[in-house]
Amino acid sequence: MSSDGENKNDSRRLPWQIGYAKRFGPPVLVEQALAPHQVASSLAMVTTLVRQDLVSEAAGEELLQALSTIRDEILAGDCLSAIEDPDLYTGLRRRLFELAGERASLVDIALFQNDQLATDLRLWLREACLGVLGELNRLRSEILELADRHCEVVMPGYTHLQPAVPELLAHWWLASAERLERDQTRLRDVFARINLCPLGGHAFAGATQPVDRESLCALLGFDGVIENSLDAVSDRDFVVEFAAAATLVGVHVSQLASELLVWSSREFGFVRLPRSFSFRSQNFPQKRNPELLEVLRSRASQLSGRLQQFVSELKGLTVSYSHDLEESLPGILDMVENLHFILDLSSVVLPAMVFDTRRMHEAASIDAANAGSAADFLIERGLPPEKATDIVERILEYCKERKKHFVDLAPGEWQQFSPAFDNEVYSYVSAASSIDQRDTFGGTARSQVEGSIRRARATLAEDQSWHQAAAARILNMTVEERALFK
Amino acid sequence: MSSDGENKNDSRRLPWQIGYAKRFGPPVLVEQALAPHQVASSLAMVTTLVRQDLVSEAAGEELLQALSTIRDEILAGDCLSAIEDPDLYTGLRRRLFELAGERASLVDIALFQNDQLATDLRLWLREACLGVLGELNRLRSEILELADRHCEVVMPGYTHLQPAVPELLAHWWLASAERLERDQTRLRDVFARINLCPLGGHAFAGATQPVDRESLCALLGFDGVIENSLDAVSDRDFVVEFAAAATLVGVHVSQLASELLVWSSREFGFVRLPRSFSFRSQNFPQKRNPELLEVLRSRASQLSGRLQQFVSELKGLTVSYSHDLEESLPGILDMVENLHFILDLSSVVLPAMVFDTRRMHEAASIDAANAGSAADFLIERGLPPEKATDIVERILEYCKERKKHFVDLAPGEWQQFSPAFDNEVYSYVSAASSIDQRDTFGGTARSQVEGSIRRARATLAEDQSWHQAAAARILNMTVEERALFK
Amino acid sequence: MSSDGENKNDSRRLPWQIGYAKRFGPPVLVEQALAPHQVASSLAMVTTLVRQDLVSEAAGEELLQALSTIRDEILAGDCLSAIEDPDLYTGLRRRLFELAGERASLVDIALFQNDQLATDLRLWLREACLGVLGELNRLRSEILELADRHCEVVMPGYTHLQPAVPELLAHWWLASAERLERDQTRLRDVFARINLCPLGGHAFAGATQPVDRESLCALLGFDGVIENSLDAVSDRDFVVEFAAAATLVGVHVSQLASELLVWSSREFGFVRLPRSFSFRSQNFPQKRNPELLEVLRSRASQLSGRLQQFVSELKGLTVSYSHDLEESLPGILDMVENLHFILDLSSVVLPAMVFDTRRMHEAASIDAANAGSAADFLIERGLPPEKATDIVERILEYCKERKKHFVDLAPGEWQQFSPAFDNEVYSYVSAASSIDQRDTFGGTARSQVEGSIRRARATLAEDQSWHQAAAARILNMTVEERALFK
Amino acid sequence: MSSDGENKNDSRRLPWQIGYAKRFGPPVLVEQALAPHQVASSLAMVTTLVRQDLVSEAAGEELLQALSTIRDEILAGDCLSAIEDPDLYTGLRRRLFELAGERASLVDIALFQNDQLATDLRLWLREACLGVLGELNRLRSEILELADRHCEVVMPGYTHLQPAVPELLAHWWLASAERLERDQTRLRDVFARINLCPLGGHAFAGATQPVDRESLCALLGFDGVIENSLDAVSDRDFVVEFAAAATLVGVHVSQLASELLVWSSREFGFVRLPRSFSFRSQNFPQKRNPELLEVLRSRASQLSGRLQQFVSELKGLTVSYSHDLEESLPGILDMVENLHFILDLSSVVLPAMVFDTRRMHEAASIDAANAGSAADFLIERGLPPEKATDIVERILEYCKERKKHFVDLAPGEWQQFSPAFDNEVYSYVSAASSIDQRDTFGGTARSQVEGSIRRARATLAEDQSWHQAAAARILNMTVEERALFK
Repeated sequence: MSSDGENKNDSRRLPWQIGYAKRFGPPVLVEQALAPHQVASSLAMVTTLVRQDLVSEAAGEELLQALSTIRDEILAGDCLSAIEDPDLYTGLRRRLFELAGERASLVDIALFQNDQLATDLRLWLREACLGVLGELNRLRSEILELADRHCEVVMPGYTHLQPAVPELLAHWWLASAERLERDQTRLRDVFARINLCPLGGHAFAGATQPVDRESLCALLGFDGVIENSLDAVSDRDFVVEFAAAATLVGVHVSQLASELLVWSSREFGFVRLPRSFSFRSQNFPQKRNPELLEVLRSRASQLSGRLQQFVSELKGLTVSYSHDLEESLPGILDMVENLHFILDLSSVVLPAMVFDTRRMHEAASIDAANAGSAADFLIERGLPPEKATDIVERILEYCKERKKHFVDLAPGEWQQFSPAFDNEVYSYVSAASSIDQRDTFGGTARSQVEGSIRRARATLAEDQSWHQAAAARILNMTVEERALFK
Repeated sequence: MSSDGENKNDSRRLPWQIGYAKRFGPPVLVEQALAPHQVASSLAMVTTLVRQDLVSEAAGEELLQALSTIRDEILAGDCLSAIEDPDLYTGLRRRLFELAGERASLVDIALFQNDQLATDLRLWLREACLGVLGELNRLRSEILELADRHCEVVMPGYTHLQPAVPELLAHWWLASAERLERDQTRLRDVFARINLCPLGGHAFAGATQPVDRESLCALLGFDGVIENSLDAVSDRDFVVEFAAAATLVGVHVSQLASELLVWSSREFGFVRLPRSFSFRSQNFPQKRNPELLEVLRSRASQLSGRLQQFVSELKGLTVSYSHDLEESLPGILDMVENLHFILDLSSVVLPAMVFDTRRMHEAASIDAANAGSAADFLIERGLPPEKATDIVERILEYCKERKKHFVDLAPGEWQQFSPAFDNEVYSYVSAASSIDQRDTFGGTARSQVEGSIRRARATLAEDQSWHQAAAARILNMTVEERALFK
Repeated sequence: MSSDGENKNDSRRLPWQIGYAKRFGPPVLVEQALAPHQVASSLAMVTTLVRQDLVSEAAGEELLQALSTIRDEILAGDCLSAIEDPDLYTGLRRRLFELAGERASLVDIALFQNDQLATDLRLWLREACLGVLGELNRLRSEILELADRHCEVVMPGYTHLQPAVPELLAHWWLASAERLERDQTRLRDVFARINLCPLGGHAFAGATQPVDRESLCALLGFDGVIENSLDAVSDRDFVVEFAAAATLVGVHVSQLASELLVWSSREFGFVRLPRSFSFRSQNFPQKRNPELLEVLRSRASQLSGRLQQFVSELKGLTVSYSHDLEESLPGILDMVENLHFILDLSSVVLPAMVFDTRRMHEAASIDAANAGSAADFLIERGLPPEKATDIVERILEYCKERKKHFVDLAPGEWQQFSPAFDNEVYSYVSAASSIDQRDTFGGTARSQVEGSIRRARATLAEDQSWHQAAAARILNMTVEERALFK
Repeated sequence: MSSDGENKNDSRRLPWQIGYAKRFGPPVLVEQALAPHQVASSLAMVTTLVRQDLVSEAAGEELLQALSTIRDEILAGDCLSAIEDPDLYTGLRRRLFELAGERASLVDIALFQNDQLATDLRLWLREACLGVLGELNRLRSEILELADRHCEVVMPGYTHLQPAVPELLAHWWLASAERLERDQTRLRDVFARINLCPLGGHAFAGATQPVDRESLCALLGFDGVIENSLDAVSDRDFVVEFAAAATLVGVHVSQLASELLVWSSREFGFVRLPRSFSFRSQNFPQKRNPELLEVLRSRASQLSGRLQQFVSELKGLTVSYSHDLEESLPGILDMVENLHFILDLSSVVLPAMVFDTRRMHEAASIDAANAGSAADFLIERGLPPEKATDIVERILEYCKERKKHFVDLAPGEWQQFSPAFDNEVYSYVSAASSIDQRDTFGGTARSQVEGSIRRARATLAEDQSWHQAAAARILNMTVEERALFK
């Protein structure tokens, strides 16, 4: 016998196979997420076939009716696929045959699971992406609110976690607002590449019926058609790209949380979570553990793990369709849920934080935080930085020995160290006036910060308008309306 | 006012906070996995405290009784933590107070959530690790069975997916058997570093009561104590290390599946999944899609995504304990489940595959597959490889033009190309005898392959004994027995 | 003594420190890449300061002269930083003082290493990005050329590496052309976020001099200013984003190479590398190892490793500037070089491959490759797919037993299996006519494929125009011209 | 014409091809690293062949002589491969033929590039691994020295960066010592799996000559033979495994540096880098940027990027040998160099840090740091933790209002809050005595810490002995001695 193993295994496996099929395929949650979109894409296909006279109006009516019933069943919580269906696609076909009889096979002339799965994933992810954009805008709004609230709060600005020069707390918030604005731009670029229509690509070579792909595209609210049918069914770039953009959102929140965690330490003492947001530590009465911030710091790692999974899944495949492409489904759902959680939590936690603004101001007022400005004074008077910093370093030591502060020094004392000093130096070594000097565009001076908040709010308003329009076009495009396509 | 934001937020958040706490903490599945181990570690602590006379026998008895009840509740499917508990640890304490009243606080003198969580995670992961090792051994056994079955099957051996010299199919299987044997070694090394006891480390500085850590260690079946209490609560190396070992298992299965997928192509035609294991493609009657193999090829990516998540979670933390350390919990559960799935599926799919051994043999018998052996003949006769390969290349062309095969050539024809040829060349250019020539240790000659199978089975038997002993010691150590510690 | 360790170490470390500084900082290659851009950004700053009357024309002239000299030194191959400089920034300052004396300190009133490094990195990366886009367009052009050349080549189309329906080789090429077109779009989106000006952000809080950031932006050819000065110095999103886009390019090439590798096997025999591109295997005369394709398959892994490095470097940092941000410098250089290599190699290897188009056509003509089309025939006649595939499966067996092919069957034989068959079936079961039936937009029918090539070429031409314009604006903007800014 | 493209490309590519071969193959650094090992493995092969009478003594002598000359050339800095060699293997063969004439082809009967490359990589990596282990032990020694030096330094112990209970600084160091001890164990496990001999595996099927693989193994100082010849040439698990272990070393150093960075802030003020180790910030006289610590914090990301690269390179390959396996070579070299840098820098930076031990003690003495101990007092007296922490919280407020400290309160004041308080409470609320109470094994009590240091030093001594023995056996096994094998 030249072949080997067949007899042993071929007969009695059926129940096992189906059990496994359920396990290895996209799990139930994925199917539930995609099911309404599968009905929608089926509705679009039937509508188009009728329009093109490839299916008769009567048959089309019946199929639309059946799909409409299935849609209601899904909305009522029924799962499309039964135990005997290996996947969602088969489930819908089975139910369609149950409802519409042999006519259901009319759909088969143009629909295939490869292009339909790709379509459903895009329909789902574009909604998820819009949902994320909505929450991102909400978080941007909260952060701009905080910037506005903290326009007068003086704090030590840090590099390398060492105080460099004083900064407005508002300016610090604006850095994150700008990052999230960039995230929004990025997600919109991704959205544009998600919202393209693969339907009609069939198995990979295009349908044998001349189905009107522009019609499918328009009915489903896509912005364009993915032309090549092989690319249409096998492209998953948008999954990787969404994951990369999402990971950067996570990184930005992580950095924000990370700095707030340091500020939450007793030693910094700049900020604390209110009682109801922090967890009282058993045995440690003094502790208010900012665990929610630690969650926000950590989550970028889960996102980047998924990003790397998605890339690794694609690497080394052949160009054509294979099951490997479906393996990212549970992960992308998990990622979107995680991202929602991060944005939602941030939007609630950040505004709730209690800032000890007096302490921040005090920390910004000590000499160490203003030595840089004293050096700037000398540099602007023409001294080379090395010389300037040497001089100021000696003044710092002088102050330390005498337990004096910069502001306490008499003009003569300054001049002992350099004749370049005059009375203007006092406006340099006070935190508030030092801040006001940094009046370049985007700098920390109050007028700049106020201008930045204004501009950022205007941009946010535009982004919210875009979002509303997109949501009206897509999120609010109900299954109901889709049934009325024709 | 120096502080900011307090009033606005501090009062009315409680319901929200708890909802969030449930969401951000280890999800329900994690709690269910860890709950029995939490009871076990609590039992061990009470037993030890009684032994050391730090808790009275009567009180100890009562606490053990309460813990025993809780254990029964868990086994009956009740969840430890109620809606008002932020986490599992708090849940157990609450229930303990409900059952044992104020006496429950005796446990608090020595137990803390940081070391107990670390302990529970290790108790859970060592069992998971043993479970994985059991399935790994099962898969090794199936593969050795396949090697044994295929000891006479001649196939073309490939490098760069180009046929190089003939090889026994058994030899090919043995490569994977050896890899999985190595995985086993690796997982046992990891197991040794998982199975260490952090209990008694308390918050991070050690308990204030002189609790006998050796007793805790012995009662819980750990192999040793993690000495430094700060390291004990914050070490998560074993999570990363387990993930790395698991990822390599996934890589090995991925490579096996990947080669079988190529062999499953019509063009190779060496193997196919039986009908009941492959998915009939709608519209394509001829297709038997080996999707199960594609699943096995792909899954290593999910594992490596988790590995990278765990590393990223730890990077840049401080040395001390923080909530970030708990963020890997859902991921490690998911990873273990995935690994079980991969091993289980492999153990069923591989033996079910149907090999077309005649076709493999034919493919190994063509000249292209044996040209290397013809060159070897010349090299062993003293020709430099370049010259030898040039000669054989010309013979290949000669055969092609005349539609002859190596075996059809007369001795004189051979000698036209080089006087070094004699009749022995026929034993080189037949697949079977070429295989028998590769009689170095571990080579593809039949005697070598048979020896390798014997040795691999002996090693597997030893590994199974180790596993049985470890399982008897740990997996079979029931909660019941743990209650009888004292 | 309250402090500890000072005496022991503080004195004699200098030589060591500098050695280390050289080692840990961006290595020499990085400095050489950034040095010309550092001169350019310095030139822009001096020009702007002179324009704003913050520096006198005379002093400005002198500084521009000195910078011009430094620029020439760099072009002549001298390295900016000497052994005593810890980094590039210090090197340029040192040399500037050597050439311009104390006047050099005028620059210090507005320039700082944090914003200048960010500026230089963006100047470098936007050029690198344009370079990559140029090579990407070249590869697209080569692939469209191949599609054009292969418009009549019929091959078996695969899903799951199983033949499904015949496809034009041109259609297969077009899938990759479309992917690379998408990569181009993505890289242009990234380019837009790279080409923004952080200069003037100073240490992080903005310069104390009211330097005109719009002027800096315009002089350096940036498309806009990054407003918030803290974000300006610490944003590295664009590094991650570039890495993600680059990784997808790598994935696309990897998949292309991966399928060609399978096709290069003797069993498929569709394609081979010409002799001069493949490596002759010592001892194996028959082998032509397609190692270059294996290189192309593998490289995406190096790219994705870098992507994950860059994300991990940023996660958990604080919002403000730290040295960690510089750690990606060598990696991003390495990544760009790798990407150039991948694109360059692909552009040469792909057109050189030798296709056995007769063999491809034969493989597409066998019944197995056309059974799907036979089923399509029945489905279009109204049979449900299950029934249709059952029927065709029986015909396949019938042919196999009688060693006949679809095309050999008499009409009566077809009708034995289903009365639905008529003479039109013959146009379904021939590869060529089956292809022509898939005449949906983007499908594999010849007219579609020709239309796709036309459209893809038009898009490429537009992209090349954009690229030329951008390159003219940026790549050709010589250092010379920058010196004439004022 | 059925084939396509050949004519166009096949002729004139040679120079290009070789240029490319040099570029895509392992770059020069890799070749230089592996070259001495290639000579060593060749020497071992010749010696073995002579011993087995497969090569005559005279011929063997001549070959050994030639190899010895090549070895000297390499030691003198000559590169094995010339411009015309595609790789190292070919370079050595060419040079061998130049020196030994046709006799060189004797080596070809048993040597092949696949197994020899695998052998050379293992020879190189085992030395690299021993080098890393040596530096790891040095760092452990420095950290134990620091622990010893800081046995009396009281500091606040943190969880969630919030002070929990006082801790000895020595105890904090010991956590990292224990982690690095674990790293050592892990690397030794990896070493055992690296130090195995693949030589004799030939292309993948075993050599046709019955070469004695045990002899090769013994001559090269390997601990065992990798049996299956296919696994022998294609196994790269050890690269991944080494990378995972190295990444954990990086993570441990990252966490150590990360906490020291927080402590280096002015607000914590516990530690600073001495002047010569920190970088003076231009313009900021007060700053001493701890950039070296930031480097140490960041580098784990580079390591984990490589880890993920190596995994991704292997995923989805077939079982057999392909060029993809060589793609990790430059990366693994880079990783080892990086690891050396991290360990070397840590060994110098950590001992140089200047601790402000008085400030640490003060921070540990404030009430907030000792409230946990006050609560412990009550819990041990039988109060439930919730009640205990409530009481202590009220005492904290009482102290704050009256500007008193715990130690200032009269016994009566304590008892106002709970009758459970007595005079013993004073020993709880002082940092020093609170530390001494945590006298469980591995806890922070001084006696425990001293015991831990003793034990850790003993273990280190054992590890150093192992290392010395292994190094004597392997590192000191000079090429000279290898020439005298026979």
